[in-house]
Amino acid sequence: MQNGRLVLELPAWAKTFLAAQRGTFASTTERMRLAIELSRRNVTERTGGPFGAAVFETETGRLVAAGVNMVEPAHCSLAHAEMVALALAQQRVGHFDLGADGVARELVTSTEPCAMCLGAIPWSGVRRVLCGARDEDARAIGFDEGTKPADWSGALTSRGIELVCDVLRDEAGAVLRQYAQAGGRIYNGPSVQ
Amino acid sequence: MQNGRLVLELPAWAKTFLAAQRGTFASTTERMRLAIELSRRNVTERTGGPFGAAVFETETGRLVAAGVNMVEPAHCSLAHAEMVALALAQQRVGHFDLGADGVARELVTSTEPCAMCLGAIPWSGVRRVLCGARDEDARAIGFDEGTKPADWSGALTSRGIELVCDVLRDEAGAVLRQYAQAGGRIYNGPSVQ
Repeated sequence: MQNGRLVLELPAWAKTFLAAQRGTFASTTERMRLAIELSRRNVTERTGGPFGAAVFETETGRLVAAGVNMVEPAHCSLAHAEMVALALAQQRVGHFDLGADGVARELVTSTEPCAMCLGAIPWSGVRRVLCGARDEDARAIGFDEGTKPADWSGALTSRGIELVCDVLRDEAGAVLRQYAQAGGRIYNGPSVQ
Repeated sequence: MQNGRLVLELPAWAKTFLAAQRGTFASTTERMRLAIELSRRNVTERTGGPFGAAVFETETGRLVAAGVNMVEPAHCSLAHAEMVALALAQQRVGHFDLGADGVARELVTSTEPCAMCLGAIPWSGVRRVLCGARDEDARAIGFDEGTKPADWSGALTSRGIELVCDVLRDEAGAVLRQYAQAGGRIYNGPSVQ
């Protein structure tokens, strides 16, 4: 029926880029700048949608793992940047719960999460989420964010997950607009609904 | 930083079981019975949570791919049965959109989807979803289904995705209760929130 095996692998440029990162990321803007740079490079390298994400240790600022959108090249609608970053972080930590060892970790994403990624966040064990561009910035170029609960930020905070929005929103949004202007495919827009 | 590679692989028993499936699955109950059998075997084989799912071609009843919950063994909070089935089906079809080739496909899941899996469904391209046990059956044994939109079924149907609930609900729910009675871990319950 199938071989029963899924392999998702970051693009070569992303592995090289991430391997070159040194030191820690002290501030929220430094962390966001990494996620935005991943989103920008994913556009210029033409390896997926205009989204980047990373998982950091909140206290130390240590980078745990990162992801970019790989939906089209990986033939996988689940491969949003946030999902890739969370899954790779869990592989690195060796546990499905990114807080199981008592170390607080956080997800940093270049755009506010869609309905799927939002639903994934509580299961991942991260204690904080930093967002760059807003839902409306993604929708402005045609992306569908899905049907999120009316008070989606409250849905996170009520679970003890801190949410920080609008971190370098303009820089993050600029990548979305750059993608649209370059004719990038809006792969989950209304055309496939 | 990381090797940038995620591998998710079905348990050996599931690959053997699925390879032995012959012919097509004409009715909704036959399709659900397969998903339930996967959930049951996942409990007795002790390879994950009590959930199974499969993707079928709606018209022909051909099995495309299947999944089981692998959260704990795979160290991956994303590895819910539905996510695994959708991702493996997309690998098999060779496209992130399970309707891109004009063939209608459907997701059959032993329990109604959590917030993450619900959010994933519209991106996957399936045109129909069949559910066995209800949210409340999962919650009754302690599982958290996440914060779903108030009218989550409407959120699917408004996107043109048909939803059929309560398909063999009792049989599906029995597996959940069997898991709880055997002391199976409720890995995403309030304890890790």
